[in-house]
Amino acid sequence: MLFFTQCFGAVLDLIHLRFQHYKAKRVFSAAGQLVCVVNPTHSLKYAPTRCAVAQTSAEQGGLPPCHHHEAVHDPQLVPCTCPLFSCPWEGHLEVVVSHLRQTHRINILQGAEIVFLATDMHLPAPTDWIIMHSCLGHQFLLVLRKQEKYEGHPQFFAMMMLIGTPTQADNFTYRLELNRNQRRLKWEATPRSVLECVDSVISDGDCLVLNTSLAQLFSDNGSLAIGIAITTSKVHNGEAEM
Amino acid sequence: MLFFTQCFGAVLDLIHLRFQHYKAKRVFSAAGQLVCVVNPTHSLKYAPTRCAVAQTSAEQGGLPPCHHHEAVHDPQLVPCTCPLFSCPWEGHLEVVVSHLRQTHRINILQGAEIVFLATDMHLPAPTDWIIMHSCLGHQFLLVLRKQEKYEGHPQFFAMMMLIGTPTQADNFTYRLELNRNQRRLKWEATPRSVLECVDSVISDGDCLVLNTSLAQLFSDNGSLAIGIAITTSKVHNGEAEM
Repeated sequence: MLFFTQCFGAVLDLIHLRFQHYKAKRVFSAAGQLVCVVNPTHSLKYAPTRCAVAQTSAEQGGLPPCHHHEAVHDPQLVPCTCPLFSCPWEGHLEVVVSHLRQTHRINILQGAEIVFLATDMHLPAPTDWIIMHSCLGHQFLLVLRKQEKYEGHPQFFAMMMLIGTPTQADNFTYRLELNRNQRRLKWEATPRSVLECVDSVISDGDCLVLNTSLAQLFSDNGSLAIGIAITTSKVHNGEAEM
Repeated sequence: MLFFTQCFGAVLDLIHLRFQHYKAKRVFSAAGQLVCVVNPTHSLKYAPTRCAVAQTSAEQGGLPPCHHHEAVHDPQLVPCTCPLFSCPWEGHLEVVVSHLRQTHRINILQGAEIVFLATDMHLPAPTDWIIMHSCLGHQFLLVLRKQEKYEGHPQFFAMMMLIGTPTQADNFTYRLELNRNQRRLKWEATPRSVLECVDSVISDGDCLVLNTSLAQLFSDNGSLAIGIAITTSKVHNGEAEM
């Protein structure tokens, strides 16, 4: 009996996922864009003081990695960049991706343009929606975070970070796009490096910020679809386009 | 002596305005776009409860004008739509523009694409930057408001409102664009009607919202340049463009 109940539950889940996938495809390009349903994870790591040290030294100039522990002897080692969990791991930048996949079960997607469909936007803060995105020979971490920067007023912060150095990150431009109800919001920027941390990107305001009413305007039945595109940077020529 | 001091002050002001105009032209299209320097006005009218009555009746269905006084007998009369001052004026929609120009000294600009350069962004909330914009045979009110929706945390809200009815407003789409430091933020939406009020647009979140750190990222020396374009609405076909 228990077996049948579980089977029935699994089938229901599959139907639900399929339905969400269909909805996202309807909203976004039908031209073969990959729609990725991303479920939320309650952030176990979030502590406002996490990056205090890194931020203070950043103010003094320089751009330090966001060290959690003080015993980093090899300067080529970076700490775990997973925004979800406190993790004692450290290793070379080249193996961060496999660590995030294997230890933290973060999915990785291929494709220059994808649709990130974050479900259950109503869940209380702090909550994160995270995937990795492989594109143009590099891997990016896409983070959507619901956080109460001001107590009682949750906001959504969406950003793309390169799993690489800040210098490498400067070679790319990413675009996040929301499109619903005859409204459209686009954010274009240079990705930050995962060596900086999510908290400092949020405190700099260098990401797409949505308050709850704006997020609701763009949500469909509790899910928010974000169109994502990554390109290599050219010389910015905003003047000619405006 | 006083005369010479005043002359010198006026010349300095002119140089300052010219410099700001030049900066905005440099940031935005050099292709003959009109750059309008908009100085702030400390809002004397702002009261969070102003639209409480209108919002309650809006929830019950229908879209009432934002009445300040209860003695509106002629349903064709609308109250003064100036977001800056409490004003007992009421009149027909057709004469709102001349009232705003003559009584409240709000400038009006021509052109399909203009650059709105808001100065002195550091001034404390509540502050408004307002112009009218004449385009496609209609007049629009562009409002940038700095307001503390959450105490101690000022935000900027930018919106375009048609000086006309909600049905007329549905025929247009407006775009606000910020572009600086290799970052770009675009908001596209249908304008709201001035018969709704600024406060209810802000509480609906139906406008471009910037927190102070994001506003600083896009500001240049305390001034924020917003590129504005208005078009007539076509059937929205976001799917094909994403």
